[in-house]
Amino acid sequence: MAKVCIGVDFGGTFIKFGLLDEAMNPGGMFQLPTPTGQGACAIVGQIVAGIRQLIDQQGLARENIVGIGIGSPGPLSPSRGVIIHMPNVSGMENLPMCELVSKELGIPARLENDANAAALGEFLCGAGGSTHNMILVTLGTGLGGGIICQGKIVHGSHEIAGELGHMIVQPGGRKCGCGQRGCIEQYCSATGITTHAVGQIRAGRASSLSALLEQNGTITARDINQASQARDELAVEIWDELTYFLALGCVNFSRIFDPDKIVFAGGMTKAGDDLLRPVRENYDRLNWQMADDKTEIAIASLGNDAGMIGAAGVAWNSLG
Amino acid sequence: MAKVCIGVDFGGTFIKFGLLDEAMNPGGMFQLPTPTGQGACAIVGQIVAGIRQLIDQQGLARENIVGIGIGSPGPLSPSRGVIIHMPNVSGMENLPMCELVSKELGIPARLENDANAAALGEFLCGAGGSTHNMILVTLGTGLGGGIICQGKIVHGSHEIAGELGHMIVQPGGRKCGCGQRGCIEQYCSATGITTHAVGQIRAGRASSLSALLEQNGTITARDINQASQARDELAVEIWDELTYFLALGCVNFSRIFDPDKIVFAGGMTKAGDDLLRPVRENYDRLNWQMADDKTEIAIASLGNDAGMIGAAGVAWNSLG
Repeated sequence: MAKVCIGVDFGGTFIKFGLLDEAMNPGGMFQLPTPTGQGACAIVGQIVAGIRQLIDQQGLARENIVGIGIGSPGPLSPSRGVIIHMPNVSGMENLPMCELVSKELGIPARLENDANAAALGEFLCGAGGSTHNMILVTLGTGLGGGIICQGKIVHGSHEIAGELGHMIVQPGGRKCGCGQRGCIEQYCSATGITTHAVGQIRAGRASSLSALLEQNGTITARDINQASQARDELAVEIWDELTYFLALGCVNFSRIFDPDKIVFAGGMTKAGDDLLRPVRENYDRLNWQMADDKTEIAIASLGNDAGMIGAAGVAWNSLG
Repeated sequence: MAKVCIGVDFGGTFIKFGLLDEAMNPGGMFQLPTPTGQGACAIVGQIVAGIRQLIDQQGLARENIVGIGIGSPGPLSPSRGVIIHMPNVSGMENLPMCELVSKELGIPARLENDANAAALGEFLCGAGGSTHNMILVTLGTGLGGGIICQGKIVHGSHEIAGELGHMIVQPGGRKCGCGQRGCIEQYCSATGITTHAVGQIRAGRASSLSALLEQNGTITARDINQASQARDELAVEIWDELTYFLALGCVNFSRIFDPDKIVFAGGMTKAGDDLLRPVRENYDRLNWQMADDKTEIAIASLGNDAGMIGAAGVAWNSLG
């Protein structure tokens, strides 16, 4: 039987489980609910239970399981296998996740932050196929990312590399929750653009979005996308700004890293060509003319499975 | 006898030669003039002659020479050992430098661009000592750089990574020779700041620098530094902008790469604390408050030897 690594993607609502074999084929995927509000032990217990269920379902022999990779929200330490802190979950401070899971199951385990795991997943099995250097930019509530350099995740010296959302693209620009000003997250994430839209409407700016805000109490990134398609002036302005700064960020990634591909993932990629086309146009316009720049911009292909697959990939990279 | 690699730093005026032993101790350094205006053969001949001279002087046996590393201005291909193009030197188009040198001497050779070689030199023997991840920013005529990730030079997918001078820090900002707008090189290199100063004076801006411009026909970065110390308004504005954008660039490098150290090299570092102090102050002010950021900003320590040492380091990394 082929050797496999087990991937676990620990999220706020679900924990996903699956396999990745030596040829990088994923399989056996299922998910269990995340036991929220019951503390750290319940979470570790659910992760262990899910792995046991996967082993049973797939009829895996211990000697064929190379290791377990666990993707998790941060902050965490991949090198120590420890979750440093988790907002909203008690008892997770300095939790030695790898040690606990590994002791329970007798299988070595590795920990990785979820954005990095997703980047490795897309690199191994998704949109990054056949690249050597790839950057994943997740466009969701926030803007996150992961950097793959010669097939390996870039962690940095304090394990906080790849905080792509906090690259400053507008000097003295909008205040970010991190304490900086002008972070790309403020211009290109769902929270960034909806907060800005609400602020503009509350300041008296006319827009078709104000009726939605009144009706729903909130505005979504999808609302802004749709209103911009209907030529609402504020929505067009915000969507143009989003695609402009995202393209500018990609130019910077190309100058610094020179990847084969920059891949967008996350909820905002549902906008599809409404997002990709103007980003590519802005990229070509903003980009240098010094060398034939071949960096491709694409949308991720694994959807919600990227994190689980990448987590298993982390185990392969480290233990395989 | 200890094994060594030979380093060659091929510059516009001099070619430098030296050794790097297994313990990363440099030695035997000397330089020969670059035979400019005599074509590619004369340059290759001078490199070979210098290496033979080094071997004789040091009494090196062939079996103790692991390899030769050659640092050179770009564009070039490290993986193919080929100089793609060299402005002002005829016959250098697609020159297979490594093959030519290697055939002549019977020693394997490797090629690296000079900024990357200098970065590796500082990493191995200079200001980067005991780091794992380091970024070198050269502040000279232009703004260049090199990225060391886990001890290796980051080359990227098309061998054009580390073009740090063309990171955009001011959207829609000053036009750069590369075709982009707002590149950090326009705000933080000697050419960038002196060009801006001359433009401001020609446009009628009052400054003590205008007398220097009239007298010398030009203004240097050193002139601007000195005038800013004397509180000349224009010079202060330009120096403040330089240290602001350099700090902003460093914040971005920290978010993306999370290095132990960012090291400044090149002619402008002669300003010493006039440069380093305000950059560090701006960095602390612009930097996030999300995590205890430990990236250190320092000035390079090897001076003009960094390129030769790093070139030998390239040979060690690849052939050792």
